[in-house]
Amino acid sequence: MKIHFASSNKNKLKEATKILAIYKIKVESILLECPEIQSNDLEEISKFSVKYAFKEIKKPVFVEDSGLFIEVLSGFPGPYSSYVYKTIGNDGILKLIKDKTNKNAIFKSVIAYCESEDFIITFIGQTSGTISTKILKGNNGGWGFDPIFLPKEGNNKTYAEMGLEEKNKISHRKKSLEKFGIWFKGR
Amino acid sequence: MKIHFASSNKNKLKEATKILAIYKIKVESILLECPEIQSNDLEEISKFSVKYAFKEIKKPVFVEDSGLFIEVLSGFPGPYSSYVYKTIGNDGILKLIKDKTNKNAIFKSVIAYCESEDFIITFIGQTSGTISTKILKGNNGGWGFDPIFLPKEGNNKTYAEMGLEEKNKISHRKKSLEKFGIWFKGR
Repeated sequence: MKIHFASSNKNKLKEATKILAIYKIKVESILLECPEIQSNDLEEISKFSVKYAFKEIKKPVFVEDSGLFIEVLSGFPGPYSSYVYKTIGNDGILKLIKDKTNKNAIFKSVIAYCESEDFIITFIGQTSGTISTKILKGNNGGWGFDPIFLPKEGNNKTYAEMGLEEKNKISHRKKSLEKFGIWFKGR
Repeated sequence: MKIHFASSNKNKLKEATKILAIYKIKVESILLECPEIQSNDLEEISKFSVKYAFKEIKKPVFVEDSGLFIEVLSGFPGPYSSYVYKTIGNDGILKLIKDKTNKNAIFKSVIAYCESEDFIITFIGQTSGTISTKILKGNNGGWGFDPIFLPKEGNNKTYAEMGLEEKNKISHRKKSLEKFGIWFKGR
């Protein structure tokens, strides 16, 4: 079965292709500028986008949206993670929580899949952790907020320090993709 | 002439009604949840919203979007001002620019007006200023980022300290509404 993935992010595409192959799903990327609505709710955003994508291509399609939700900042930067990263960056986040004791955060990923105008289903993946006190890139680089997110399951290493292979065993996106794959295979 | 204003913000409605009355435009509020897209460009966001509103009501309609653009933060919080205010607030903004010398900021307002599927026009109002070093509410209260925005034309008072009447003489929203009114009257 071939499903289109509406995304321009090469990292996401690589990850999705690899994980969904386990479930005999062949991922085909389409470069489609899906409008994202402003909302605090990742599910709502991804549903809106996938509906738009389906209307455009009229074929089974999924999208993926993710965000970092910091508890003490009322969920900021949440669904606007990409914009916030580009403007105030990791430095900005560290400044905002420097004097906070509660450094809890959740990285969320939502997959929305659509195969007809009436059929949209979503799958959520979450990884809990804390925000580090400084930027920790390790030798592996890491993009976005990876250098400041310490997942609970990560032996006190940030997503960035873990490297891609280790990160992808516990990542929020891995979890949502896996749920989607299992559901799809079981139909 | 009666025009619908798609907004749930009572402050905006009051301001628009008052200013547009000068140009013989009667404002009628409609409570319509217009989806806002995620974009760095207020004009794009407002065009998308007003198109949606027009499709829903099939009558001349306008929307208003505004945002605070801080130069040294690459325009943050920009189009996401409302979300950022609700999560990290004025305290958060002050933390982010505490150690910055450049405190320049612009408050922008965009009016988008639509009267047919092919006819959308926008009007931009801008007020330049700086971010204050602390929250200055004065006796008048002030909402959103008003207590930290010192307009250049404001005699070293924040929007909040100026009070509504004084603020509305120089505000970004006043400027966009006025441009809209002048254009509309001159047709």
